[in-house]
Amino acid sequence: MQQSKNIAIVGSGLVGSLLAIYLIKAGHQVTVFDRRPDVRKVEFSGRSINLAMSNRGWDALRRIGLEDEVRKLALPLDKRAMHVNEKPLYFQKYGKDGEAIYSISRGILNRKMIDLAEEAGTVFKFEEKVWDIDMKQTTLYTGDAETTPWNKYKFDLIFGADGAFSRVRHKMQRQSRFNYSQHFIDVGYKELTIPANSDGSHKLDNSSFHIWPRGKFMLIAMPNLNGSFTCTLFMPFEGEVSFESIDTEMKADAFFERYFPDIKEDISNLKKDFFANPTSAMVTIKCFPWRYGDKVALVGDSAHAIVPFYGQGMNAGFEDISVLFDKMEAHGDDWKKIFSEYEISRKPNADAIAELSYRNFIEMSSKTADAKFLLQKKIEKKFAENHPESWVPLYSRVTFSNHSYAEALKTGDKQEAIMKEVMNIPKIEEKWDTIEVEHKILELLGEEIPA
Amino acid sequence: MQQSKNIAIVGSGLVGSLLAIYLIKAGHQVTVFDRRPDVRKVEFSGRSINLAMSNRGWDALRRIGLEDEVRKLALPLDKRAMHVNEKPLYFQKYGKDGEAIYSISRGILNRKMIDLAEEAGTVFKFEEKVWDIDMKQTTLYTGDAETTPWNKYKFDLIFGADGAFSRVRHKMQRQSRFNYSQHFIDVGYKELTIPANSDGSHKLDNSSFHIWPRGKFMLIAMPNLNGSFTCTLFMPFEGEVSFESIDTEMKADAFFERYFPDIKEDISNLKKDFFANPTSAMVTIKCFPWRYGDKVALVGDSAHAIVPFYGQGMNAGFEDISVLFDKMEAHGDDWKKIFSEYEISRKPNADAIAELSYRNFIEMSSKTADAKFLLQKKIEKKFAENHPESWVPLYSRVTFSNHSYAEALKTGDKQEAIMKEVMNIPKIEEKWDTIEVEHKILELLGEEIPA
Repeated sequence: MQQSKNIAIVGSGLVGSLLAIYLIKAGHQVTVFDRRPDVRKVEFSGRSINLAMSNRGWDALRRIGLEDEVRKLALPLDKRAMHVNEKPLYFQKYGKDGEAIYSISRGILNRKMIDLAEEAGTVFKFEEKVWDIDMKQTTLYTGDAETTPWNKYKFDLIFGADGAFSRVRHKMQRQSRFNYSQHFIDVGYKELTIPANSDGSHKLDNSSFHIWPRGKFMLIAMPNLNGSFTCTLFMPFEGEVSFESIDTEMKADAFFERYFPDIKEDISNLKKDFFANPTSAMVTIKCFPWRYGDKVALVGDSAHAIVPFYGQGMNAGFEDISVLFDKMEAHGDDWKKIFSEYEISRKPNADAIAELSYRNFIEMSSKTADAKFLLQKKIEKKFAENHPESWVPLYSRVTFSNHSYAEALKTGDKQEAIMKEVMNIPKIEEKWDTIEVEHKILELLGEEIPA
Repeated sequence: MQQSKNIAIVGSGLVGSLLAIYLIKAGHQVTVFDRRPDVRKVEFSGRSINLAMSNRGWDALRRIGLEDEVRKLALPLDKRAMHVNEKPLYFQKYGKDGEAIYSISRGILNRKMIDLAEEAGTVFKFEEKVWDIDMKQTTLYTGDAETTPWNKYKFDLIFGADGAFSRVRHKMQRQSRFNYSQHFIDVGYKELTIPANSDGSHKLDNSSFHIWPRGKFMLIAMPNLNGSFTCTLFMPFEGEVSFESIDTEMKADAFFERYFPDIKEDISNLKKDFFANPTSAMVTIKCFPWRYGDKVALVGDSAHAIVPFYGQGMNAGFEDISVLFDKMEAHGDDWKKIFSEYEISRKPNADAIAELSYRNFIEMSSKTADAKFLLQKKIEKKFAENHPESWVPLYSRVTFSNHSYAEALKTGDKQEAIMKEVMNIPKIEEKWDTIEVEHKILELLGEEIPA
């Protein structure tokens, strides 16, 4: 058992709330600060992408006995539903039978996590912005505005769980030798909604992750418990078809009619949201170190914000907490060692999932229409089905395993190199389904080829 | 002729001062703010690396008639002097006859540039820190401290020339979709001095750039007009031989005696500086955009800080000003176009010199002791001498030409790929000096091979 500490967490999002629960169960006192109002008391922002909870997220919840509570909020999605223009709807299974990602509304989960953290004994201080941090003295200065008098709080430890634009990290960044990068992509996103049918049922299949791939832009839809779908439109900020170019109701009508004919009946709602909801940017943030001595540490997006195209942002943040807890169990009251091993073990994995998420953005943007790319995926899939021990597809490794992200990236690169050779086999289009190709892959994997 | 503008420059360093002169000659009014005191009235900081002015720097000075004034402060260095332990001193010429880099003390040049800018009509406001910037209103807020009342100045245009940790850029960074990275290397540097002989002459050859390569660390020395040498010790912050590990006078004695026997007589001075002068960090900073509309733009280190291992930091900053001026000449009063074309044309070149400088750090750190690497350099050099039209070495392209940095990087990569093939020739160690190797390079360059 650790010596009880008085701990501050900045940020009452998903990761901050989960961390609070972990810390309290470990015997600490926890106060959570958030500059925003209590998310349980306000309307949602209209700028969320639904969460896709997968293996790593569930593991972190299960470990602390929260899995069942959260399952009640989630809908399992075991496949993609591809809405390709002028083609019938078709489905792609995510993994093996029983494997699924889980659609959860970010707002609803956040409310639940705060409830659970509060029940566990966390003190929440909403609408109290942290203006300054004395890291050496683990002291927070909070208040209404930069110039009005501040409250001063002294803690034993401080965690930054305050997201991509973290104030805690910002404070760390002023140290010399703090590595930092923020990289925005040229594509933005906007939340849209497809409401439920009048009887409360879903308008589209509710065990699928719906995708309308359209080359440079894409619409996705994930079901909610109340029968609605939270949709996300990903589209360039500027250019021919872009958030900037669709600036009248007429243009919006034409856009939805042309590109999304199978949800045409919902245009009025989509259009309303299109003009009411903000367009948000997406950023990859990397930094190092993630801590200040044995006093301050970063978790979740504040340490490693990623683009959402692998559905792993929350899962990675939850896994941070799980790893931090491993280190707490291993090193007792030696917080320097806890923080140091936490950052050293997590950093390569955070970099890996950042890279994988960014690659998925490139893949979705530029390759989904490429016949050769689709053929490659088909060959991989078939081989994986026939040789499940030898070939776990990258997506499954990231989503349905708890092997490290860094290992997933490395294995994925190896698989990609093999597939590159396979795709160079002359007339691969004709013979992709032959034993020759299967043997070639086995050979490249260095495995025995059946006689 | 442009319409006269009232322009603020933040930062009175080399690039800020040069920009002031260019803008005044173009008919504008210029005020330069600096939070530091007037460098002409204070002692130097003891944390400078001497400058190596080369082609790009001279071009920017010549264009505005300042070349001759500055030449008076500079000593030409046409070669490296390599101080390798247990080997006699040997020399490596930088380029062709007449090609040299020019050693100038940063402090002395900065004083001169401020004098010249003041003579041209620049108003300097020293010890006046910019606390806030309203970019939309091109308004600066300056003062003594963050909490005392501020002065407010309205300008037509604002330039950030305030270095790697630019306040102006910091303000830009708060915009959404501002890409930014800062990456520190694990090596720090410290300024040391070798004083002149009692008769005022130099203790080492004064037309050489002196290098003591020592694997993980390295000392360099560049001559000053007064007979002294400004030395820079590059060394890891932490580790076996590091700034951290040399923490007593005795350890410093042992360090200098063991590794720098040929300048042993200067140990007492080197040691004094070692403990008196700060250890500084080195960082690569990249960002984009470099401007806010037609109102604010970044120049020099504030837009692209680089590590000093190619001697191009100031040269790149001066070239910024020259390119900015090209755009001013081309686009009259259309400052949006001027800024936009400036950032678009400069950004790839800034990225390229950042990459080249970082590679030189890696090369100096890890490859100078590698026999194969030295052989490669020898082969390249010989080929370049025999085929000056076909092979301009990368160093010469960067240092003695005004071809863009991006082109230099690209050509350098091509040359590197060719040399990789050449180094794979069996028994290259024996036959490096043969016609076979020469013909191989010509073949790989796609050039005609003499019968």
